[in-house]
Amino acid sequence: MHVVVTGGAGFLGARLIHALLAGEATLDGEAVTRVTSIDLAPCPVEDARVESVAGDIADPALIRRALGEDTVAVCHLAAVVSAQAEADFDLGMRVNLDATRGLLEACRAHPKRLRFLFASSLAVFGPGLSQELSQPVAEAVGPRPRSSYGAQKAIGELLVNDYSRRGFVDGRVCRLPTIVVRPGKPNQAASSFASSIIREPLAGLDAVCPVDAQLPLWLSSPRAVVANLIHALTLPGESLGDWRTLNLPGITVTVAEMLEALERQAGSEVRSRVRFEPDAAIDAIVASWPGGLDISRPLALGFRADADFDAIIRAYREDALTS
Amino acid sequence: MHVVVTGGAGFLGARLIHALLAGEATLDGEAVTRVTSIDLAPCPVEDARVESVAGDIADPALIRRALGEDTVAVCHLAAVVSAQAEADFDLGMRVNLDATRGLLEACRAHPKRLRFLFASSLAVFGPGLSQELSQPVAEAVGPRPRSSYGAQKAIGELLVNDYSRRGFVDGRVCRLPTIVVRPGKPNQAASSFASSIIREPLAGLDAVCPVDAQLPLWLSSPRAVVANLIHALTLPGESLGDWRTLNLPGITVTVAEMLEALERQAGSEVRSRVRFEPDAAIDAIVASWPGGLDISRPLALGFRADADFDAIIRAYREDALTS
Repeated sequence: MHVVVTGGAGFLGARLIHALLAGEATLDGEAVTRVTSIDLAPCPVEDARVESVAGDIADPALIRRALGEDTVAVCHLAAVVSAQAEADFDLGMRVNLDATRGLLEACRAHPKRLRFLFASSLAVFGPGLSQELSQPVAEAVGPRPRSSYGAQKAIGELLVNDYSRRGFVDGRVCRLPTIVVRPGKPNQAASSFASSIIREPLAGLDAVCPVDAQLPLWLSSPRAVVANLIHALTLPGESLGDWRTLNLPGITVTVAEMLEALERQAGSEVRSRVRFEPDAAIDAIVASWPGGLDISRPLALGFRADADFDAIIRAYREDALTS
Repeated sequence: MHVVVTGGAGFLGARLIHALLAGEATLDGEAVTRVTSIDLAPCPVEDARVESVAGDIADPALIRRALGEDTVAVCHLAAVVSAQAEADFDLGMRVNLDATRGLLEACRAHPKRLRFLFASSLAVFGPGLSQELSQPVAEAVGPRPRSSYGAQKAIGELLVNDYSRRGFVDGRVCRLPTIVVRPGKPNQAASSFASSIIREPLAGLDAVCPVDAQLPLWLSSPRAVVANLIHALTLPGESLGDWRTLNLPGITVTVAEMLEALERQAGSEVRSRVRFEPDAAIDAIVASWPGGLDISRPLALGFRADADFDAIIRAYREDALTS
């Protein structure tokens, strides 16, 4: 069985592809035998079962070529991230909205009803009308994005739901928490600092935190996110009911608590490499996201959260050693 | 000052144009002196200040031609209605989504920041996850449309909000209740029956009600909706705060209560012309809409609801006599 992953060159996409081919996902009783990654860059997973298609996901012809008779699922992870979509509105609209719609149309044209896993984001939320959205945010609360990225993701959620309701795809929408600790370098996500303030000090480098120490963040480790994406892909679509959008589990941790955990795990010298330099543009986006969501339904459906932030740091250090 | 109205040939658009030219809207201290109607058909308002542009609102060139140096506002009422968008998905996407985006892009290209009034709908709502959304529905509750029309309107809401946040337009999104009593003939809206069961009996004709008598509907008269749209257009955008979407006031009335009011206003013989013939397709759409919304914020902002359903019938009969 064949699965298409957009954003397969990204760190999350590559981990998802690795997990899919490791037999972690069984779709209708069968294992995944072949994966196509679509991304601007080639997929870093070295496995003969991975085909890398390098190109623009907003190109419908590219998508049609990637889908085959044995395709059973599309995992749509590719996106222009938050700060970048804020800086370049038209690019965000093209990649985050038009390409999502193009993918859904390609799936609709496929003879089978394909599973469609859409990575949405916490960023669909903004502050409440009173600027004080009570937290954890109830599942019925609607998106009020304060970034174009969030608006484009919220639109994608509506599209995947309507395409699912009509039977064009079998959709699953996962709103991802902020993922920490991302390996590698900072990216153009407004939340990039949340990884930097752990990753850089552990590597002996200085890091800058652009938001207030008391800001609560809604966080998940890469391991938990990948396990939850696999779970979302494998469970029967009907178990989600009429509404295919899920808030993926996270944990609520303030920046100060993150740094305390860093000190417990790596010592005070490591922690001292983080300094605070407020950045209004980053703060305006990140502080608009809720610090906690009601996840009783996803937990009942078998999704899982990390134990605590210390465990997230330990997992990052283990993964860094083995990769 | 010039205002563009899409859907100006429709009954609501024509009434809005009439009200605009009657001096009911003062925009930044100036009266409306010129209106362009864009619709497939010509605008029925006979007034030398109205220019009718007949054509497809999804055609960007048409929109660009309609906007002038003196344009201050675009009122976007044109839509493919609910049952029609359900029957023809691609038509609904093109008119309800692509044309809305095209209009917003045309406004973005205009040298002034134009007011953008978007007629959304109660249809953005669907049943809650438990199928029992508590009513009246709180303002924070998010769209979960159970129709493509509702999904397309919910997407339009997100676009207007993001274009407003970025300063491309000065948007105002009004979620219209089901409008009764519409004059003329039934249309392809799933809620068309709500007008038919009053209008046809009053005209001596039989009418069919496709939903249960105990179904609560969220209703507004055409008069109240037009007055509220004018109010939405004229108030300062800042008074809406960061989130430009408003649930326009309505009243909660069951079908049975509508028929009781009809009997009070016109007698039992008139009422007896309505018979019940359940229609599952209509019921699936209409019963998914909430029967009541929390409107405390719009009422505080000066929007108004009808007194009761008897008043709605009386207003319809008065309007029918004078038109």
